Amino acid sequence: MNGRLVTLEGGEGAGKSTVLAAVRERLEHHGIDVDVTREPGGTAFGEAVRALVLDPARHGICAESELLLMFAARAQLVRERIQPALAAGRWVLSDRYTDASYAYQGGGRGQPLERIAELERWAAPVAPDLTLLLDLPVEQGLARAGTRGEADRIEREGGDFFERVRAAYRARAAAEPRRFRVIDASRAVEEVRAAAIAEIDRYVAAAREGA
Amino acid sequence: MNGRLVTLEGGEGAGKSTVLAAVRERLEHHGIDVDVTREPGGTAFGEAVRALVLDPARHGICAESELLLMFAARAQLVRERIQPALAAGRWVLSDRYTDASYAYQGGGRGQPLERIAELERWAAPVAPDLTLLLDLPVEQGLARAGTRGEADRIEREGGDFFERVRAAYRARAAAEPRRFRVIDASRAVEEVRAAAIAEIDRYVAAAREGA
Ligand SMILES: Nc1ncnc2c1ncn2[C@@H]1O[C@H](COP(=O)(O)OP(=O)(O)OP(=O)(O)O)[C@@H](O)[C@H]1O
Ligand SMILES: Nc1ncnc2c1ncn2[C@@H]1O[C@H](COP(=O)(O)OP(=O)(O)OP(=O)(O)O)[C@@H](O)[C@H]1O
Ligand SMILES: [Mg+2]
Ligand SMILES: [Mg+2]
Repeated sequence: MNGRLVTLEGGEGAGKSTVLAAVRERLEHHGIDVDVTREPGGTAFGEAVRALVLDPARHGICAESELLLMFAARAQLVRERIQPALAAGRWVLSDRYTDASYAYQGGGRGQPLERIAELERWAAPVAPDLTLLLDLPVEQGLARAGTRGEADRIEREGGDFFERVRAAYRARAAAEPRRFRVIDASRAVEEVRAAAIAEIDRYVAAAREGA
Repeated sequence: MNGRLVTLEGGEGAGKSTVLAAVRERLEHHGIDVDVTREPGGTAFGEAVRALVLDPARHGICAESELLLMFAARAQLVRERIQPALAAGRWVLSDRYTDASYAYQGGGRGQPLERIAELERWAAPVAPDLTLLLDLPVEQGLARAGTRGEADRIEREGGDFFERVRAAYRARAAAEPRRFRVIDASRAVEEVRAAAIAEIDRYVAAAREGA
């Protein structure tokens, strides 16, 4: 069976990091070698970019620079980790990926979608095979996220920003129904986890038949 | 008279930083308000990007990420400093600008020129009015640069890399003869400085007639 790129997406506090561990365990339970990563970050260079772009003290960063930094981290992640893992037949599981740029820098900040698509074409030319979108009302996600530590630069945006992020994610899921699985993340953790695991089971079974 | 963007370009050790002070003084001597900046850098955010992209310890950065970082710093510089200065009728003098990406990330690293042109179009949509290209044989520039402190990540490249950088700069100057002034920088400092000052005198006189 070939390697696959599986991504977890969703707004603030949707439960991506919470579900990640369960998804990883489930893939390993199926005998699959998984590399786990996150965005922005996942490489030494990318983590340095992450620290820069999420630093709450850098409030004046323009939308263009934010978009370029996200793709700078992503270009390195693709070449240093994702492509080598896939070439070796491993799976990669990422907490956020390019869809997050369409949602946050596109929907949230208003950067044109064609601009993002053009960057994707040459900077991050590896599309996810499966994307689990954890969807829930904005206020509910923010309430969950609020119980954690200090908010980063992007988490400090207003509710309108996150409504645009959610709408952009849902639009992407609607446009690519074969790749996306939308999971109702407003439910209790156990239910969300079970829904994610069920999607993984279905996907692995289909991948085994295909390969 | 409107504000203008004047840029200094050239390979390693060409003498850009050396000539910069003389150019600035000459512009001020003509009664022009000048903001001086450099690339990558020129803003708090851009200087943080500069530290990241030039750090000799980060040897594995891919060419795509390097290009994206250069434009991330530049996008911020354009919006935070260049556009406001020009709008206020001030002149901006920059030690390197977008031509350096065509030369280093294009010529040096082989990134396609159309890719750079597309980034320029939306991330740095302010073209220089006048560019002084300090041109000299690669070995001569490297010998000069070698007398300074520790080499940064890009300065550690090989001679072939810098030959491509020089060729790319010269090709840009040939393609835009109205904007570029090529200065033979292999001469003694005083001659190079005098040549730069003569170009500034001519340019200011013409700008005064035009505006
Ligand atoms: N289904 C759920 N019900 C209630 N609380 C949850 C649920 N899922 C996660 N949480 C809690 O909500 C908070 C945010 O969860 P988590 O960090 O997994 O979200 P995230 O999508 O990774 O957020 P971010 O976008 O900030 O990385 C955590 O405190 C987590 O324990
Ligand atoms: N015309 C010249 N003749 C001899 N030495 C020079 C000349 N111009 C500059 N130098 C010396 O060469 C070294 C490099 O000059 P400078 O730092 O101005 O170059 P630069 O183009 O800014 O280099 P970099 O690309 O590394 O920023 C310095 O030590 C400077 O004093
Ligand atoms: Mg998380
Ligand atoms: Mg210099």
